[in-house]
Amino acid sequence: MRLDVVTIFPEYLEPLNVSLVGKARARGQLNVHVHELRTWAYDRHNTVDDTPYGGGPGMVMKTEPWGEALDSVLADGYETGSRAPALIVPTPSGRPFTQELAVELSGRPWLIFAPARYEGIDRRVTDEYAARMPVYEVSIGDYVLAGGEAAVLVVTEAVARLLPGVLGNAESHRDDSFAPGAMAGLLEGPVYTKPPLWRGRDIPDVLLSGHHGKIARWRRDEALKRTAANRPDLIERCDPKGLDKKDREMLSILGWAPDPDGEPYGRFWRRPEGMEQ
Amino acid sequence: MRLDVVTIFPEYLEPLNVSLVGKARARGQLNVHVHELRTWAYDRHNTVDDTPYGGGPGMVMKTEPWGEALDSVLADGYETGSRAPALIVPTPSGRPFTQELAVELSGRPWLIFAPARYEGIDRRVTDEYAARMPVYEVSIGDYVLAGGEAAVLVVTEAVARLLPGVLGNAESHRDDSFAPGAMAGLLEGPVYTKPPLWRGRDIPDVLLSGHHGKIARWRRDEALKRTAANRPDLIERCDPKGLDKKDREMLSILGWAPDPDGEPYGRFWRRPEGMEQ
Repeated sequence: MRLDVVTIFPEYLEPLNVSLVGKARARGQLNVHVHELRTWAYDRHNTVDDTPYGGGPGMVMKTEPWGEALDSVLADGYETGSRAPALIVPTPSGRPFTQELAVELSGRPWLIFAPARYEGIDRRVTDEYAARMPVYEVSIGDYVLAGGEAAVLVVTEAVARLLPGVLGNAESHRDDSFAPGAMAGLLEGPVYTKPPLWRGRDIPDVLLSGHHGKIARWRRDEALKRTAANRPDLIERCDPKGLDKKDREMLSILGWAPDPDGEPYGRFWRRPEGMEQ
Repeated sequence: MRLDVVTIFPEYLEPLNVSLVGKARARGQLNVHVHELRTWAYDRHNTVDDTPYGGGPGMVMKTEPWGEALDSVLADGYETGSRAPALIVPTPSGRPFTQELAVELSGRPWLIFAPARYEGIDRRVTDEYAARMPVYEVSIGDYVLAGGEAAVLVVTEAVARLLPGVLGNAESHRDDSFAPGAMAGLLEGPVYTKPPLWRGRDIPDVLLSGHHGKIARWRRDEALKRTAANRPDLIERCDPKGLDKKDREMLSILGWAPDPDGEPYGRFWRRPEGMEQ
């Protein structure tokens, strides 16, 4: 996979030399190029921004440096069809970046990132390039950053670890939160390793039992507890057909009940106070 | 504000020297310390992980190096009460990191970050430190990273830009997506700057009209359009009391209708196909 990043802070992308992404580059699985946007700004101050049309606070990134920068990147290997690059624009106004989208992007040959600063990039830039390649405007979460560079690191890492051969033995995506499988849609519960006793704290007995069925059940109960506590939205979205009798018992203990209007099993909702289990 | 990060990849935190956070450090507004976790691992290979109790894939980070590392960080200035540090543990199993949480964290004097790798940190570590300080297990989004370091950069940047005096004139948080105000709960629409014509593309006439009311209305309509397209969940959560007549007209054009059971104005929901406006 090829990655290009155009930015006014190339140093911010230093982590692309480190850890999983760095190793994938060293092995030739990733081909990464970081470009300084100001290379394509020609005035004395290498200006890349100007005041917004219509007034208001902040600055907007200009069309010309972005247009020249992206043309230059595309001139080096642009193809249409299945080899076409995709343009990724991190912005709080984008659609949510999810694990599903990470999987989709991991199947593409070439990703070009356009992280903005200030109030964003002049809209005509994405309009222009959307005519030549898919453009993904993505938001990595409901918070505001100073610029898109941190989002580039996030998207790159989430995508790179899905590429064949990139993830080492110490890591695994079989049991990931948000991954398909037995824990689909649930957060992972607590994990423990040696020693069995640390500062007076021991580990749950079941983990030493050697009983695979009981361990799997305990892990699933812990996953349900943590999901109900931290992400009630995931319990509400959870497909009730994927819940067995023990799951339903645990959700009932946690204060959830199936929607009585759902048939044969309704989605779960938080039981109102005072309602019987 | 003081920030400490304990990590097995100190190089990953290089962006803390760059841009907004780097400048805040240079001005003395942020006091940042990055610590190598392996400093507190004493075997020949500086091991920080081991196999999980109960079996399964992946590795779990051990209690002892984390305990010694955090003790060492805390020994340098730990206080209780309003000067107490908070421990931030990025994990996909955490509660969502939001702008609201960024605001809350920006009011604290000291944040200590414990970014995990592999399957996570032995649970007893957070149990141990939760007795001494607030612990925030946070997830920056519904995707899986190779480790928590990218999340540390995200949280740090979202928090740092809210500190008094950190944000420069070119930036602004008045009109941020997710910020309170006229655009509360809506994504920002497109922005434009000079030149008025670029590669045959012009800008919306209204932005050159000088008519502040019309410009504000156009911006709000564009915000409604983008929010409806990219984040229908935000339209559903939107407080209908904050919507004026023109907002309601735009939402109707976009295919949304107020819930007829809501009084006096119900929350908006997507109008089913075939239903009249």
